[in-house]
Amino acid sequence: MKLTFSPASPFARKVRIAAIELGLIDKIEFVPTTVVPGQANEDYSKITPMKKLPVLILDNGDVILDSYVIVEYLDELAGGGKLIPLSGPERWKVKSDHSLLQGMLDSMLLCRYEKMLRPQGLQWQVWSDDHWKRAWSGMARFNDKPDVLARPLDIVQIALTCVLGYADFRFADCGWRNAYPNLDAFHERMLGRPSVKVSLPPKA
Amino acid sequence: MKLTFSPASPFARKVRIAAIELGLIDKIEFVPTTVVPGQANEDYSKITPMKKLPVLILDNGDVILDSYVIVEYLDELAGGGKLIPLSGPERWKVKSDHSLLQGMLDSMLLCRYEKMLRPQGLQWQVWSDDHWKRAWSGMARFNDKPDVLARPLDIVQIALTCVLGYADFRFADCGWRNAYPNLDAFHERMLGRPSVKVSLPPKA
Repeated sequence: MKLTFSPASPFARKVRIAAIELGLIDKIEFVPTTVVPGQANEDYSKITPMKKLPVLILDNGDVILDSYVIVEYLDELAGGGKLIPLSGPERWKVKSDHSLLQGMLDSMLLCRYEKMLRPQGLQWQVWSDDHWKRAWSGMARFNDKPDVLARPLDIVQIALTCVLGYADFRFADCGWRNAYPNLDAFHERMLGRPSVKVSLPPKA
Repeated sequence: MKLTFSPASPFARKVRIAAIELGLIDKIEFVPTTVVPGQANEDYSKITPMKKLPVLILDNGDVILDSYVIVEYLDELAGGGKLIPLSGPERWKVKSDHSLLQGMLDSMLLCRYEKMLRPQGLQWQVWSDDHWKRAWSGMARFNDKPDVLARPLDIVQIALTCVLGYADFRFADCGWRNAYPNLDAFHERMLGRPSVKVSLPPKA
């Protein structure tokens, strides 16, 4: 299998951590890929018209997206139920928490694009404020869920780690550690995992 | 169960069509909800920090998001495997096709916000062109998949119907029917379903 990848992508990081934790990392070839909104990448658009990272390309050519579906696929390959519960109310709580985290990352990327990619003079503060507020209040939600932060590793904890790592990477002054001490302690614990440490984003 | 809803939301429409087709529509109370990027909705943000439509609120208070996870939940309630295959390669193809359609809708909404919500003078054509191209080339992908268009109803066909309905609603002059005749024929067939017809977006 091949995974399109950039060390700066929090979505690709999520898949990388999951693959390591599931014992599947050696089966995946990482294909460095660059995507920037507003810049063409015709070759990659043929693989996925969404032009987003990551996708998983199976040996038969099938393309799996998005990052969550890839983790589901890898989880099944590893036997099932490792990072996502297979049934019961917990399954829907984990999936919904993950949807929230996915939305938080989407909003953080929209903030990043608004401030760093869009030409100066065309920026709309109302837009970035709204999206930052979504991410920030989402963090508050997880700061108040000690059970989620303390339980055995799952996709929610992995995605939350990627949210916090992306905050450090692109919004280094946002102050999430002071605002959310439970998330700070959680993140420190997660850094004890080789999968989390090896996949830290590069220096901004 | 309660579903936060707007007749203009293609994501809410997807859940509505699925609920009708699964025979679950009478178990769901629709809660009219208005969300606009850049405008606060404090009550709704307490339910979901993402402030997006729809979410499903269970009788025990649990909140399920996003629209895809809600359809998965309803599919399981209805016995499982009705709109999303339960196993095998088809499961991952359907999930990946749905991820693509979800991304197409996300991009179409970003185009809409760029052109209609963002103040004039702050609009960046490069951004809307890039996102429109993703949606447009995604349509080409499905236009070239006659097997997907002709098979029994599933979540991919429902989501594709919502993409095309949203194109009619917000991008009436885009010309998708001329460009993609297979999608035109597919959409006409889908309109034969009461679930699709009753959920058409309002006049723009």
